[in-house]
Amino acid sequence: MSVLWTVKVVGLGAVALTLSLELLGRLFGRLKHRKTLNEVLFFPSEVACVEHFFTPTATHSCFCSLPHGVETSFYRLLRHILSASSSLDLCVFSFSNADLRRAVLLLHSKGVAVRVVSDKDYSAITGSQIGVLRKAGICVRCDVGSVHMHHKFAVVDGRRLITGSLNWTLTAVLNNMENILITEEPDLVQPFVKEFHRLWVLNDPAQYYQNQ
Amino acid sequence: MSVLWTVKVVGLGAVALTLSLELLGRLFGRLKHRKTLNEVLFFPSEVACVEHFFTPTATHSCFCSLPHGVETSFYRLLRHILSASSSLDLCVFSFSNADLRRAVLLLHSKGVAVRVVSDKDYSAITGSQIGVLRKAGICVRCDVGSVHMHHKFAVVDGRRLITGSLNWTLTAVLNNMENILITEEPDLVQPFVKEFHRLWVLNDPAQYYQNQ
Repeated sequence: MSVLWTVKVVGLGAVALTLSLELLGRLFGRLKHRKTLNEVLFFPSEVACVEHFFTPTATHSCFCSLPHGVETSFYRLLRHILSASSSLDLCVFSFSNADLRRAVLLLHSKGVAVRVVSDKDYSAITGSQIGVLRKAGICVRCDVGSVHMHHKFAVVDGRRLITGSLNWTLTAVLNNMENILITEEPDLVQPFVKEFHRLWVLNDPAQYYQNQ
Repeated sequence: MSVLWTVKVVGLGAVALTLSLELLGRLFGRLKHRKTLNEVLFFPSEVACVEHFFTPTATHSCFCSLPHGVETSFYRLLRHILSASSSLDLCVFSFSNADLRRAVLLLHSKGVAVRVVSDKDYSAITGSQIGVLRKAGICVRCDVGSVHMHHKFAVVDGRRLITGSLNWTLTAVLNNMENILITEEPDLVQPFVKEFHRLWVLNDPAQYYQNQ
């Protein structure tokens, strides 16, 4: 009788131990799985070919003189932007970079909902790509109220924030000391989602002319 | 005998249960306790009196015409900067805001180790506070290599990152649409700590003149 009870107790202990380990394993596994995307990029970026983002066959057939297959800061920035599958909300002071314009047009052509808020003065300067986006049918709204709409952020699919000091210009990418921070931390992303919505509504031309 | 064993098993089960609950409680408590600081501020900021940051007695005795006791974006930004107890590493393109200059000088006077990296061209323009910081004995290094040292970030005590689109100017604070993101997420803070160190060493005047 005593031996049988010992076996039962040991068995019970073994079951309790394995259950506890399994529970802890699942808990940590879930925490590990939920590791939030956080990345920082610094500029100026090295120069490298990014043609394969726009012409998939170029991966093996581009013969331009730039280095190929190098994961520069600009390469990673483009990859984050092009990861959009449903929406891209872009709020940028100055936008003159041709590769970034190509990325936005590519997303638009794939059916991704693109919305752009920009600065009135800077959207009219020589080299600005804002006019090209408008001609392609992308909805752009310009801030007319503040001295400058100085933001430089994008929200991808409502959950990935791309923000920093970097304007979407060639000088910023290739010459300046700049930073870009990419995060999916909801406490950081959600305020930018709300701010984009606020600026989008605030700069609705219908709304604006109504208030004149 | 059988009754005694039953008591032992039930007792063992109770002990296992309470231990498991305690373990889970501690685990969740620690996770809750470790909730990382993440905050986003948008500008332009409302105008309010911030005199109490610099003259503690002003909390009850300031009679200026500005609203008092309002937690504006600028108020919160100042509070984050003034939370520094050991170091402030500042890397900012344009610095002309008098209240931010007062905050940096206050930290310096309290013995906080302040280091500043700024843009060569913008540190020489009218209204720049960089000269005032230098006169007070704060070590400032100017970037001479890139087209623009366009960063606008600060690291407080090596663990709190303040970064965004906002230059440290009056126009940025009171007129522009701007953002500031404050985080203690190590994955985001550490790259900026390293970048500051890199820029600090890179722009060491001794190093610079050696390379001429």
